[in-house]
Amino acid sequence: MAIDLSYSPEVESLIERTRAFTRDHVLPIEDAHGGDIAVAGGDEIRVKLQQAARDAGVFAPHAPIEYGGHGLNMSDRAPVFEEAGYSLFGPTALNIAAPDEGNVHMLAHIADPEQKEQYLAPLAAGDVRSAFAMTEPAPGAGADPSALSTRASKVDGGWRINGKKWFITGADGAGFFIIFARTAGEPGDRGGATMFLTPADAAGIRVGRHIDTLDKSMLGGHCEVDFEDLFVPDSAVLGEVDRGFEYAQVRLGPARMTHVMRWLGAARRGHDVAVDYVARREAFGGKLGDLGMVQQMVADNEIDIAATRALLTRACWELDQGDKAANSTAIAKTFAAEAIFRIVDRSVQMCGGMGVSGDLPLARLSREVRPFRVYDGPSEVHRWALAKRVVGAAKRAQRES
Amino acid sequence: MAIDLSYSPEVESLIERTRAFTRDHVLPIEDAHGGDIAVAGGDEIRVKLQQAARDAGVFAPHAPIEYGGHGLNMSDRAPVFEEAGYSLFGPTALNIAAPDEGNVHMLAHIADPEQKEQYLAPLAAGDVRSAFAMTEPAPGAGADPSALSTRASKVDGGWRINGKKWFITGADGAGFFIIFARTAGEPGDRGGATMFLTPADAAGIRVGRHIDTLDKSMLGGHCEVDFEDLFVPDSAVLGEVDRGFEYAQVRLGPARMTHVMRWLGAARRGHDVAVDYVARREAFGGKLGDLGMVQQMVADNEIDIAATRALLTRACWELDQGDKAANSTAIAKTFAAEAIFRIVDRSVQMCGGMGVSGDLPLARLSREVRPFRVYDGPSEVHRWALAKRVVGAAKRAQRES
Amino acid sequence: MAIDLSYSPEVESLIERTRAFTRDHVLPIEDAHGGDIAVAGGDEIRVKLQQAARDAGVFAPHAPIEYGGHGLNMSDRAPVFEEAGYSLFGPTALNIAAPDEGNVHMLAHIADPEQKEQYLAPLAAGDVRSAFAMTEPAPGAGADPSALSTRASKVDGGWRINGKKWFITGADGAGFFIIFARTAGEPGDRGGATMFLTPADAAGIRVGRHIDTLDKSMLGGHCEVDFEDLFVPDSAVLGEVDRGFEYAQVRLGPARMTHVMRWLGAARRGHDVAVDYVARREAFGGKLGDLGMVQQMVADNEIDIAATRALLTRACWELDQGDKAANSTAIAKTFAAEAIFRIVDRSVQMCGGMGVSGDLPLARLSREVRPFRVYDGPSEVHRWALAKRVVGAAKRAQRES
Amino acid sequence: MAIDLSYSPEVESLIERTRAFTRDHVLPIEDAHGGDIAVAGGDEIRVKLQQAARDAGVFAPHAPIEYGGHGLNMSDRAPVFEEAGYSLFGPTALNIAAPDEGNVHMLAHIADPEQKEQYLAPLAAGDVRSAFAMTEPAPGAGADPSALSTRASKVDGGWRINGKKWFITGADGAGFFIIFARTAGEPGDRGGATMFLTPADAAGIRVGRHIDTLDKSMLGGHCEVDFEDLFVPDSAVLGEVDRGFEYAQVRLGPARMTHVMRWLGAARRGHDVAVDYVARREAFGGKLGDLGMVQQMVADNEIDIAATRALLTRACWELDQGDKAANSTAIAKTFAAEAIFRIVDRSVQMCGGMGVSGDLPLARLSREVRPFRVYDGPSEVHRWALAKRVVGAAKRAQRES
Repeated sequence: MAIDLSYSPEVESLIERTRAFTRDHVLPIEDAHGGDIAVAGGDEIRVKLQQAARDAGVFAPHAPIEYGGHGLNMSDRAPVFEEAGYSLFGPTALNIAAPDEGNVHMLAHIADPEQKEQYLAPLAAGDVRSAFAMTEPAPGAGADPSALSTRASKVDGGWRINGKKWFITGADGAGFFIIFARTAGEPGDRGGATMFLTPADAAGIRVGRHIDTLDKSMLGGHCEVDFEDLFVPDSAVLGEVDRGFEYAQVRLGPARMTHVMRWLGAARRGHDVAVDYVARREAFGGKLGDLGMVQQMVADNEIDIAATRALLTRACWELDQGDKAANSTAIAKTFAAEAIFRIVDRSVQMCGGMGVSGDLPLARLSREVRPFRVYDGPSEVHRWALAKRVVGAAKRAQRES
Repeated sequence: MAIDLSYSPEVESLIERTRAFTRDHVLPIEDAHGGDIAVAGGDEIRVKLQQAARDAGVFAPHAPIEYGGHGLNMSDRAPVFEEAGYSLFGPTALNIAAPDEGNVHMLAHIADPEQKEQYLAPLAAGDVRSAFAMTEPAPGAGADPSALSTRASKVDGGWRINGKKWFITGADGAGFFIIFARTAGEPGDRGGATMFLTPADAAGIRVGRHIDTLDKSMLGGHCEVDFEDLFVPDSAVLGEVDRGFEYAQVRLGPARMTHVMRWLGAARRGHDVAVDYVARREAFGGKLGDLGMVQQMVADNEIDIAATRALLTRACWELDQGDKAANSTAIAKTFAAEAIFRIVDRSVQMCGGMGVSGDLPLARLSREVRPFRVYDGPSEVHRWALAKRVVGAAKRAQRES
Repeated sequence: MAIDLSYSPEVESLIERTRAFTRDHVLPIEDAHGGDIAVAGGDEIRVKLQQAARDAGVFAPHAPIEYGGHGLNMSDRAPVFEEAGYSLFGPTALNIAAPDEGNVHMLAHIADPEQKEQYLAPLAAGDVRSAFAMTEPAPGAGADPSALSTRASKVDGGWRINGKKWFITGADGAGFFIIFARTAGEPGDRGGATMFLTPADAAGIRVGRHIDTLDKSMLGGHCEVDFEDLFVPDSAVLGEVDRGFEYAQVRLGPARMTHVMRWLGAARRGHDVAVDYVARREAFGGKLGDLGMVQQMVADNEIDIAATRALLTRACWELDQGDKAANSTAIAKTFAAEAIFRIVDRSVQMCGGMGVSGDLPLARLSREVRPFRVYDGPSEVHRWALAKRVVGAAKRAQRES
Repeated sequence: MAIDLSYSPEVESLIERTRAFTRDHVLPIEDAHGGDIAVAGGDEIRVKLQQAARDAGVFAPHAPIEYGGHGLNMSDRAPVFEEAGYSLFGPTALNIAAPDEGNVHMLAHIADPEQKEQYLAPLAAGDVRSAFAMTEPAPGAGADPSALSTRASKVDGGWRINGKKWFITGADGAGFFIIFARTAGEPGDRGGATMFLTPADAAGIRVGRHIDTLDKSMLGGHCEVDFEDLFVPDSAVLGEVDRGFEYAQVRLGPARMTHVMRWLGAARRGHDVAVDYVARREAFGGKLGDLGMVQQMVADNEIDIAATRALLTRACWELDQGDKAANSTAIAKTFAAEAIFRIVDRSVQMCGGMGVSGDLPLARLSREVRPFRVYDGPSEVHRWALAKRVVGAAKRAQRES
């Protein structure tokens, strides 16, 4: 027991190989298609990139070893995912893109053996994609999950699900869904949710339009999904009935952190592109990168990258200790989402006209990272939850003294 | 002489009519086409919108009365342009979009009678569009105009122009170009530039690709333009030879301010959309707009809007007095570009998932306004010029005391 | 009717004379005593400075002409007060320091002829100082004035006042008090307040300790004041019974703006000191003021000064039109308090070790300006009030449509 | 080898005891004297507090075990120093205040056995205080150390030192000085400095005025010190001649980090005071701490505390590995100095009028922490050095490719 920030040689090697793989095999494809994964070929390019990742020995760093992965804990995932995130297509290549990566994590923790065989095994192997159907249009579950309105009613031998979802990442083309539905209580109640597993081709599931969002790198889009009298058998219940909110926490803490890892990689790429540009570009009788205001942006990017990484290290270590890590993951997510936005924004600014154009990847990175301040909980909701805990503790201490 | 911030009844009426026209005739078309003017029909939609503006009596508020405009000075343009800018297509409808609006301004000040008839009259009337060919790819004229590399060589009866330009707004489809070329000295020298007028169909002009930028609302794109042995007669010189940098100032100060006016309108629309959303949307047992962190964003938007407008009022008044207003226009442009960005960014954040989607105009506004912190001089260049003058004055005062 | 930002020759002359007077007669005394007015001699130095101001023809720019002042409206006060504020002792010298200046303003508007003769005349002449007794310790009137707890009970021929106040600026040495007390309702009610005038030597007034605040330039301190069975006659009522909250608004809008004017002057001095320093000081082979990061601070100060002044101009003009100007004064106050803080903070930073020392006035300015983000309503309260009005208007519009 | 963020049981116990000691024995004395260590009794209170620390087993956590300390490495110092820093007098009590703590560190690394016995032993034991005489008034060594002007000339048997220093922390009452003087080259050269040890009562040392700075908690002030023909024998050279700049780095990296540790403790106290206040204080019909804008400040403080601590952990670990850690200490220092300032500033704001008064410790904390953005290198210098390394690396990579 003593502070140690080093990685094992095996992890160091995986980091290094992931860096090389991303640079050599993934970035060229991203850049050739302007970072739009649908334009690049959708699932076809996914299959190709994933095979390349397998060949390079970097596939599925997060998946349990028995499912063909590297079995990394959260702490070790951080640097590996960051390297994959250096390209917008890197997470897809390694099979660690949202929502599949978080679904693997959750299924490994909660699914029963049959569910693991049916759903986790092919997901971890990259044979299918998945979707996590939680978010609903207003007035349903959004920043406030307790507003959950989709309802599962008990019927003979199973459940019948009705409701509307949206912003369901990866829904188009997913092989199966994890559905979050209310089995007890009313919208506004903080309990009564259950998770269900179902193949995507079950009757009663309709994947609607892709919502046109600022980001374009996620396979299968952010879709509207309707459930109309969808029947699922009793064996479809993930874990236990009415414990869905609890399980969501199992998924959400780590999923927040893996988002941070990936987007940090993207931000670092933006920074590298900008530093390369200002080190090269002449203006006002010298290099842009020797001007004080540009140096300030370079330094602030370095600070934001380092702070994001340091907060991530902390939160991941807590998660690895078995903590819920509610505060440290909220802190890391909130800081990171804003820092990543700032890093990319400064990188754009350093490159001027080139920065806002498609001639460099910065304009698209600026589009891609913006939603992260909203997805997985807006910064305001994390701040609110954090403050509530801190002020609440002070109130209790006052009552007790 | 005494502080007066009111407008004449005529101007008040024009403001009001422009607001109604934009809301009723322009916004619906913008919204129907996702704010992409090419998608909306390009010049065809321009012609239609401009006719509607003429019918509504709001066309060409800036153009001299003798050219069919309302002849407003800078102070009076501010509120009218802001109303037009409330829609991304509003400036096109009123014929006050960049670069035409600034070109009208400059031609009215510098062109000779023949040039006015040939170029200003049809431009003010909306019969043609124009382009201002100044910016060059590295290592040419960009944030540092003295790097101007395009060269005009004296030949018999005129000039022969060679060089490469890019980010030439509106070049595709322009009826004529104002070309900024070096007639003396070498790149790096702070003088020796001349402006030339030429029809767009002259031999030796090649309009290349549209640079793919974050903004999509400007007709004719931001293009690469090559001049290869382009011949222009002596009568094509705008003003006098070698005084181009001087004339550029005539154009740039006011053009900066009209940019601010238009983008301020766009930011105000973003804010209005967000306020409407948070006043309506329920969350956590009340309206979003009653939560403190949302109230803070609403208030900060109001503050940024008010401060932008107040700085604009100041700079315009100075310009109307005949001042160069170098400091006040640099201050207003720099503050405004950053404030407008913040306003739209907060508006996106207030609307959460909807904010980053195409279901509201906010995501596209966030793309549109980003480049303004770069176009017309990056904020860093304005800050640098401003500080140089202030510190320079202090040095002089020290030497004299 | 048309935008005009010029001042009359009389006002221009008063601005110029105030600038010279402050620089030549006031600043040297401030600097000699580290900006602590008690150290400089308290009321003794006040009397001396005010005589010098009379001699220079710059005394009481705000007071009605019939009371010996210059009778300036709010718009014209702005530049004059700013010049006076350039020294922390300048407002005292011109008799425009808080709270006297606001009290003159309010008495001129609300007092009856006898009250004017007894209280306004000597106050405007600088013969006495005054205090405005409104703020109370928790849980009384603070950021939330409706919590007003000090109570005035009707008795034969007058009122009997009991309660505790604090942060009563200028109380120690004041010749009279304006007391804000509840005459109806209970703490929490938004009405029922009355203002009373009383000589400071009335039985039942006890001026307690000076609260030790970051600022040291206000004569008479920020004091605790207790009222214990203080009797005031019926003639002591200022305006009408139960209309105190309403009258407070009369005072608060303009008082907010004059605070801004004065502190803007102080911020400008900080900036000037810093610019002089960086223009002079060598480092890294050149002048500090030629380094990009310093230039950025210089430019940001210029922007903040300009924006504060522009928002002030707007709010003052609205007040001069007879508007309540609730939004524009809240905006100007909130922006200004934060901008002024930033200006002084950057000025400190530019001067490094000297900046945090007593060898330059910056360290004391940083102490002096900090409380302005709290005094006269914390920024958060102004933002909240502003957002409530804006979101409230949106809700009404939705109900009506 | 794997990420570990836990402390050994011995360190955990020391953290816990330091927390209790600071709270029970130190804070009451700080609060009773308004945080001014001179007012509290100067060296007399130091002796008393240090005895109490010895009794509590928390004295000298940093000093080598053979000199009576706990021998903690940098990683383990971080949480212990933070606990001590919770009171402004805590570092003095534990004998880990600047500059003694850094001097112990440097002497332990560089001094020879005789020097250790003469200087290190009594310093580690708390028998004497010390000063590090490096900073000079303009145009000497400041943010740019290469401007070093104090000169040591070789004379028979030793050196003769002449020069002026200022901002020499703890000089008044120090038992000995470590003097930084030029032994080769000219001001502006990046080499040629040597460090010398000398008793404070040597002829030729004159300790002048205390510079009146915003902070008041450092014993012995920030003084002007003149060396006039000060003779030191050859044995006074610390390490080797002309290697002073190199040794300064040995001291500066760790010293930066221990500054961060201590000030982080102070900031945390400010935050705790504010949270306690807002959890208690009623306003607008609830607790202040339940209002959104206050929650935002609470959350932002938590984020800033966590990020500072995380960056500190990283930099300390690198230092413990024997790295120079130039980037990670610059990043941690720059981020921390600004974060700590923000934390205290928000804490002031949360407490309103109380926050800017002496009734809470916040006003004094706001004074105390401000200079940290300047001391030990202004943020701008750290950013500049950081950017230079990053952009320099990019230039090299471009040349090589």
